[in-house]
Parts: sequence; C-alpha cells; structure tokens
Amino acid sequence: MSYSVTVQTLIDQLGRLPGIGPKSAQRVALHLLKVPADDANRLARAITEAKEKVSVCPRCFNLSEDGAECAVCSDPRRDGTLICVVEEPSDIVAVERTQEFRGRYHVLQGAFSPIDGVGVDRLRVVELCDRIVAEGVEEVIIATNPNLEGEATATLVARYLAPHDVRITRIASGLPVGGDLEYADELTLGRALEGRRAVDAG
Amino acid sequence: MSYSVTVQTLIDQLGRLPGIGPKSAQRVALHLLKVPADDANRLARAITEAKEKVSVCPRCFNLSEDGAECAVCSDPRRDGTLICVVEEPSDIVAVERTQEFRGRYHVLQGAFSPIDGVGVDRLRVVELCDRIVAEGVEEVIIATNPNLEGEATATLVARYLAPHDVRITRIASGLPVGGDLEYADELTLGRALEGRRAVDAG
Repeated sequence: MSYSVTVQTLIDQLGRLPGIGPKSAQRVALHLLKVPADDANRLARAITEAKEKVSVCPRCFNLSEDGAECAVCSDPRRDGTLICVVEEPSDIVAVERTQEFRGRYHVLQGAFSPIDGVGVDRLRVVELCDRIVAEGVEEVIIATNPNLEGEATATLVARYLAPHDVRITRIASGLPVGGDLEYADELTLGRALEGRRAVDAG
Repeated sequence: MSYSVTVQTLIDQLGRLPGIGPKSAQRVALHLLKVPADDANRLARAITEAKEKVSVCPRCFNLSEDGAECAVCSDPRRDGTLICVVEEPSDIVAVERTQEFRGRYHVLQGAFSPIDGVGVDRLRVVELCDRIVAEGVEEVIIATNPNLEGEATATLVARYLAPHDVRITRIASGLPVGGDLEYADELTLGRALEGRRAVDAG
C-alpha cells in the first residue's frame, strides 16, 4: 500500500514548495489531515486569497494589493529623491526593519544570472531608469545581495544609471555586527578592510 | 513597511505547519505569490479536497477515502490472522515498502505520552483488543518507534493484549543495515547484543 491518490496529490503539491523535501511534504500532509478541517481550510483560503488580491506595485514592483501602489509608494512622508534598489520584496521588509531608511524602493524582481536564464530583460532596470527622470531622484542605493549574482546585478544597474545625473551608492560589505574577526572569511574581511572609514577621534 | 494583511495571513498560516519556521513560511509565501495562480490554487485545492475526501478506516484507523475501509483492510489477499500495530499511517507506508509483511495493520493514532496529554484513552488500544476477538488474530507485531514513547506504548499494548490468546511480538532493535559498530550508540549496540540470533553454520 502507498498513499491514496488524494493524499499523494497533496504530498506532491506540498513537495513543490521551496525548501520542502519529500519527507517534509509527507509530514506536513499528514499533519494537515490530522488537524480540524477549519484549520486546514484556513490555509487553503489564505493561498487563494493571496493569489486573488496581491498584485505588484506599478511604480516600484513591491508587493501591493488590488493593483494599487504599495504602502511605501503611497506614503507621502517617504523621500522620493532617494531610491533603494533591491532584488525581492522580502528585502524591503529587511531594510524597513532597520528603521534607517526613509526613501522609496525599486524591486528588480530577481538578480542578474544568465546561467538561470535571468537576463537584463527580466529585471526591472529600464523601469528604474524611467523613474530617475520622472521622479527627480537624486541618489540610488543599490542594495542587492552581496553574493555573485547580487554583485553582477549591482554592476549592471550602475552601468544603466551612469548616463543619468544621479548619485549611485552600494551598501557596505564587511563584518557583521557581533561577528568575530577570527572566523570571518577572507573575502568578507578583505571587503571590511577596503571599506574602512576614518574614525572620529574627537 | 511590513507585509500587507493578506500576505501576512498567508505567512502565518504557513508558519503553523510542522517544521516550517517564520523564515521558511515567508519564503514559501513569496514563492506562492510568484508562481502562476494555477500552481498555487492547485495546492489550495489539494488541501481542501484531502480534508473532504480522506477519512479514517473504521477497522484499522489507517487513512482511507470517503469513510470506506482502507486499501489494506479491503484487500482479501491480506492475512487477517496477523496484525502489525503502528503509531501513525506513515509507518504503514514504511512497513509496506519492505514488501515483507502480508498481514493487516492497526494504527494507534499516536504514542503513549502522558506529558503531552496522550493517555491510553487517546490511543486505539481498546479497538485493537476488540479486533483480536472479532477477527481471530493469532499474532500481533508491535511496531511502534524504538524510542521512549514508542517503547512505553509497546509495553502498554502488550499489557492490554496479555489476557487474549494471541502471540505478541516486537520488531527487532539493533544496528541498521550498512551501519558501523564503531559509531553505534551503546543502547543500540546493547539491544543488538541482547537480540542476537543463532547463526546457521550449515
């Protein structure tokens, strides 16, 4: 005996989610079969509703609802002259958590990775350039991930922005706060040295 | 900015699944928002359908569909005099994979664990005793997990079965096939010694 078609379908569908292998999919499926129907259906409804309601902000490509502009773009208190470029909407949540940034965002919807079929045409770079002109942007902070794809994306974005009269910056790479010099990899430590700043000894 | 209510609801619902922490829940949610609506809705539908269709076998408490007996119980080729007692339906799939067992099953629907509020009343032990009489069972193999709760459950089940005229056995504990004596923990190795069998030197 293996699982019935209905159960196997559920396991297969769960197994397609990122980070969920066959064993976890089975575990989650059996969990869903065990909990009250209301609990399981709440999850099913959350998925359907999210797919119905959630859309992409027409200005910055962040997540938004019902085709409107996202919460950041529609907030008049945000500084429109400063744009932070990120790969994914989840990166916006990370930056917002710092409470250090009062500008707006631009979501590229991915990172430049020709090997995975993500070329410039798949990223929202042209739309970013359009915004520079239309919104009178003065500085673009490139906050793509500090990995291979993210760095390639940063170089690419910088190249596209170069003709425009705009300050282009990149978030700092270095040792994480609370980190340990001894355990830092040489690339990170190299970047930390390279990006050293004058100490105000005053 | 944090996520909108719709997105946050989806993340929260996903985060309630076993083995899915807040980070994975966020990752899965954003994945679901990215894939075509059809793909996401297929998962939602699989959940709803599983909750509608999947039921519990009235005889052995395995998973079944539409209130009927499960695939094993309704198979006339299975040996009704031999019952393998397991904790969960997933254990049946594991035993079936060995292709060594041609009897029927009985799912306890958990393991004895008073600390988690699972007493004898929550396990299908009385139903098992009823089956012994009604189905003329000759041997019960107790295949609960070889851990603390599983062993306690095995002892409990054996005690309940004792008054009945039935052979009670427990699956062997010992070194896993392909295992290494050097790396075996002392409990497992102790069990392997204890459960040693005569070698047919013929």
